[in-house]
Amino acid sequence: VAPAQSLTIPGGVHAEGENRQRTLRLVVAYDGTSYCGWQTQPDAPTVQGILTRAARALDPHARLTGASRTDAGVHALGQVASLSTITTLSPNAVGRALNATIPADIRVLSAAEARPGFDARREATGKHYAYLVDCQPVAHPFLRRFAWHIPQRLDPHAMREALATLRGCHDFSAFCAAPGRGALPTCTIRTTHMVCRRGRLWFVISADRFLHHMMRNIVGSVVAVGRGSHEPSWLGTVLRSGDRTLAAPTAPAHGLTLIRVLYQG
Amino acid sequence: VAPAQSLTIPGGVHAEGENRQRTLRLVVAYDGTSYCGWQTQPDAPTVQGILTRAARALDPHARLTGASRTDAGVHALGQVASLSTITTLSPNAVGRALNATIPADIRVLSAAEARPGFDARREATGKHYAYLVDCQPVAHPFLRRFAWHIPQRLDPHAMREALATLRGCHDFSAFCAAPGRGALPTCTIRTTHMVCRRGRLWFVISADRFLHHMMRNIVGSVVAVGRGSHEPSWLGTVLRSGDRTLAAPTAPAHGLTLIRVLYQG
Repeated sequence: VAPAQSLTIPGGVHAEGENRQRTLRLVVAYDGTSYCGWQTQPDAPTVQGILTRAARALDPHARLTGASRTDAGVHALGQVASLSTITTLSPNAVGRALNATIPADIRVLSAAEARPGFDARREATGKHYAYLVDCQPVAHPFLRRFAWHIPQRLDPHAMREALATLRGCHDFSAFCAAPGRGALPTCTIRTTHMVCRRGRLWFVISADRFLHHMMRNIVGSVVAVGRGSHEPSWLGTVLRSGDRTLAAPTAPAHGLTLIRVLYQG
Repeated sequence: VAPAQSLTIPGGVHAEGENRQRTLRLVVAYDGTSYCGWQTQPDAPTVQGILTRAARALDPHARLTGASRTDAGVHALGQVASLSTITTLSPNAVGRALNATIPADIRVLSAAEARPGFDARREATGKHYAYLVDCQPVAHPFLRRFAWHIPQRLDPHAMREALATLRGCHDFSAFCAAPGRGALPTCTIRTTHMVCRRGRLWFVISADRFLHHMMRNIVGSVVAVGRGSHEPSWLGTVLRSGDRTLAAPTAPAHGLTLIRVLYQG
């Protein structure tokens, strides 16, 4: 006789229900090309929508929160999501069950037990974003989904100098898609890196938080400096102005990848 | 008055025709995912078919020969094609004109004037092929079109040792899809490399020529050694047997990329 086990539906929900709520922490990677971003929308394919549907096959009341609401076409290698569920499956089994039903361009890289109530969005203490630019004369066909193609020599020294002026705690309204609306415009950029290799450029920025379109707006303006349209010091001038209309056009979404989300401890 | 120019149709064919035949050497890269290989087929999308159609918009009698007839799903970063044409456009303008009409997953990286009658296939003196294996527990979504996913630890030392036994001039019938048919089974493998980094493996082989499926059959058998199914010396035994049925199953097409084609001088 095994009374405890008899209450468990294999691979599914525990019969006692309510009091078995738990939270899993998922690390998710995706090629965002085919999706209208992270956040669930009624009639469009989104990463959160796909993952939530898969999670609800295990537990109809599962809830999923992502650390970052990436835009349409933006990719992730280390998106973090909190999954609130009453499934009794092990974290690894949940990861495998999700990967078995979602398309190959979205993958749950890992699943782990988290503190009950863990919120991937509210508790994030920082993020790393990377932006890839392909500067070869002809666009590399393997990179066409992941890089902004600019068939032009960009000045690496000027761009590195410009990027560095953004480090520290500032009001980033000038690089925000909808400044003034909602959240505080203050962010702390902890590190900026630019790696230049074989005609490709990676911009990597680590900050405590990012405003809407902030990374893409920064890259757009840094590239304007690299093209020689502005001096490196111009980026600081734009930043201090707080005026979105002074910055260069937003860089396209498909060059952007969420690399990592940071948490305390 | 400019009589010579008046005979030229802008961007197109020279009116004198026949006696202006020239040969261009194109370097072509492609993501082969959407194509039924290189070679033109009546009712299927192929890379040669797409490029020939684009070239015939410039010159209805253009002929295109590729150095390697890559299989369905195989990629290229350095395929070489000879284009026989009477167009009067500069090589660079031909490259730009082709890229303007073909899909983004095929790119002409460069176009140069070649000796009249240059044949990219017959004159090739060697080729480099690379094969990518993704050994992470979960398949990387960015690599799913370009790597064979084997979620298992493979023994790098055993695989390197096995690969090295293939160097030199041998009868490769044991690794040929259809041995005995057509061409000579003798090839010279000049170098073999295996690069192992961050859970990914690259196999790179340089040879004077490759038999049909040879690279994929070699990788399939090297991976069998890496899995521990066979000792490293087994690869030499298979090679010497000349018996295709002894080798392991063929590795999937989508991990394979034609890297470079070599020519004299």
